[in-house]
Amino acid sequence: MPVYVVGHKIPDSDSICGAIALAHLKNQIGEASVATRLGDISPETAFILDKFGFEAPELKLSYAGEEVYIVDHSELTQAPDDIAEATIVGIVDHHKLGDLTTSTPLECWIRPVGCSNTVIKMMYDFYNVEIPKNIAGIMLCAILSDTVIFKSPTCTTADIKCVEALAEIAGIEDFKALGMDMFKVKSAVEGTPARDLVMRDFKDFNMNGNLVGIGQLEVIDLSVFDDIKADLEADIAALKAEGNRHSVLLLLTDIMKEGSEMLIVTDDLAKVESAYNCKSVDNKVWLDGVLSRKKQVVPPLQDAFA
Amino acid sequence: MPVYVVGHKIPDSDSICGAIALAHLKNQIGEASVATRLGDISPETAFILDKFGFEAPELKLSYAGEEVYIVDHSELTQAPDDIAEATIVGIVDHHKLGDLTTSTPLECWIRPVGCSNTVIKMMYDFYNVEIPKNIAGIMLCAILSDTVIFKSPTCTTADIKCVEALAEIAGIEDFKALGMDMFKVKSAVEGTPARDLVMRDFKDFNMNGNLVGIGQLEVIDLSVFDDIKADLEADIAALKAEGNRHSVLLLLTDIMKEGSEMLIVTDDLAKVESAYNCKSVDNKVWLDGVLSRKKQVVPPLQDAFA
Repeated sequence: MPVYVVGHKIPDSDSICGAIALAHLKNQIGEASVATRLGDISPETAFILDKFGFEAPELKLSYAGEEVYIVDHSELTQAPDDIAEATIVGIVDHHKLGDLTTSTPLECWIRPVGCSNTVIKMMYDFYNVEIPKNIAGIMLCAILSDTVIFKSPTCTTADIKCVEALAEIAGIEDFKALGMDMFKVKSAVEGTPARDLVMRDFKDFNMNGNLVGIGQLEVIDLSVFDDIKADLEADIAALKAEGNRHSVLLLLTDIMKEGSEMLIVTDDLAKVESAYNCKSVDNKVWLDGVLSRKKQVVPPLQDAFA
Repeated sequence: MPVYVVGHKIPDSDSICGAIALAHLKNQIGEASVATRLGDISPETAFILDKFGFEAPELKLSYAGEEVYIVDHSELTQAPDDIAEATIVGIVDHHKLGDLTTSTPLECWIRPVGCSNTVIKMMYDFYNVEIPKNIAGIMLCAILSDTVIFKSPTCTTADIKCVEALAEIAGIEDFKALGMDMFKVKSAVEGTPARDLVMRDFKDFNMNGNLVGIGQLEVIDLSVFDDIKADLEADIAALKAEGNRHSVLLLLTDIMKEGSEMLIVTDDLAKVESAYNCKSVDNKVWLDGVLSRKKQVVPPLQDAFA
């Protein structure tokens, strides 16, 4: 029986590329593994997979009775629905430690770096397994995506060195140009339904018993949202009600101006404003310098709820 | 401000030697660190520290506002009481994933091996830091203790290879003889109050909302308990009542016969018996082949409570 290697719900490029890269490594060291996914792939991820010649991993939602290697999260809300009936054999991640628990020993490769694929590169090095050119390519793209081409405060020297090493393996001379191509794909929002945009990179967090959903759209220029912002606002309000959430935040991130406009629907606006030390206007606020949900948006709110 | 490196409550040799070894490594790579402990050291640990010329780490119970590196556990019940007010920067462990969570990214070096010190050796290798002879000595002893000189089912080839490498660094020719000396120290229970014996290696677990305490005493011959078994039984009954526990189990492990007598006080004897598929007599049962609390005692009970 194989081990299923799976990233979080509403998979991003790190979850998909990481599952492929880790499953390959595990197969090379004699542990039969299959990369899977918990949802549709984003246009950015489709661009990456297409560029390096990969199919999307198999869509698989149920893992009861199976062995699972978790990629890019350690939160129950982001894991398969029936994870409690599966055996978690490992976790590779770069986020805060969440509420997943196990009843048997496991391996955890968790590091405070910018991307799970940077940690997976460490695993390749540990096992002394060569990284194929096309896998190096998707790993590199995942790191450029998560670190916003090194601009995010989550980016560490380990991520930069990792991208440089992977670029050499993959034979990519100008990886920053590749990163910009990727973010151009990500910036093409025209004609996409609001719900699809909001859910493109959306994570639920359990904050002291309150369900808080936080979405993020990273683009090259916020003007792409001018015509659809009202639709986005209406949609996150609907999403809050549907999921019985305490709050839904949507970050519209301008990777060139290096900041985010946050759209807010919440049961407690004062709590959100105090978390970010800001004053919103019409439930919107520009947060200068805020690029990272993980490092700049989740922890202050977590503290506000504590 | 230093990072405090601390093992679990009622520290065993892995917690103490691991804290010393990891603090040394962290200091070598430029991260100021101080090894601390959450309780008295056991006679076995005192023997190890004395043999290799170490003082016991500083006793420190409060960590509010401090940065902490957790060794040998990931359970709230085993962590400092005020851990929620500290920042956990890392966890090195070899147990099931417990209920510690964080609000910021951290590093986790968790592996399904026999001892945290085996994982710490991997960290030394990763950072390419030389292990001093005396630190190699205490790390080796911790691994021999946790793996019961390789007899425990928790022992992996990684642990054995690690001990062999550490023995070479420490210049120890007959590490098995050293292990037996250590277990002889551990077997000297005469004259020690029952409570001290019970608490020598005692861990509380949160099993689906129920507090379950499990102690273990590993000796070379169970006959050392003949005269004090009634005292031990009375003491775990008291311990159950004092802590409002659902159950307290005490494992009297014979490392030569390779099995354990389990003393049981519980609110639900049928549940405990079904977990181990056994029938107790006078709240006692011999479990043949059972040497490991972590691998053979906790998971079946966890499942019974699930």
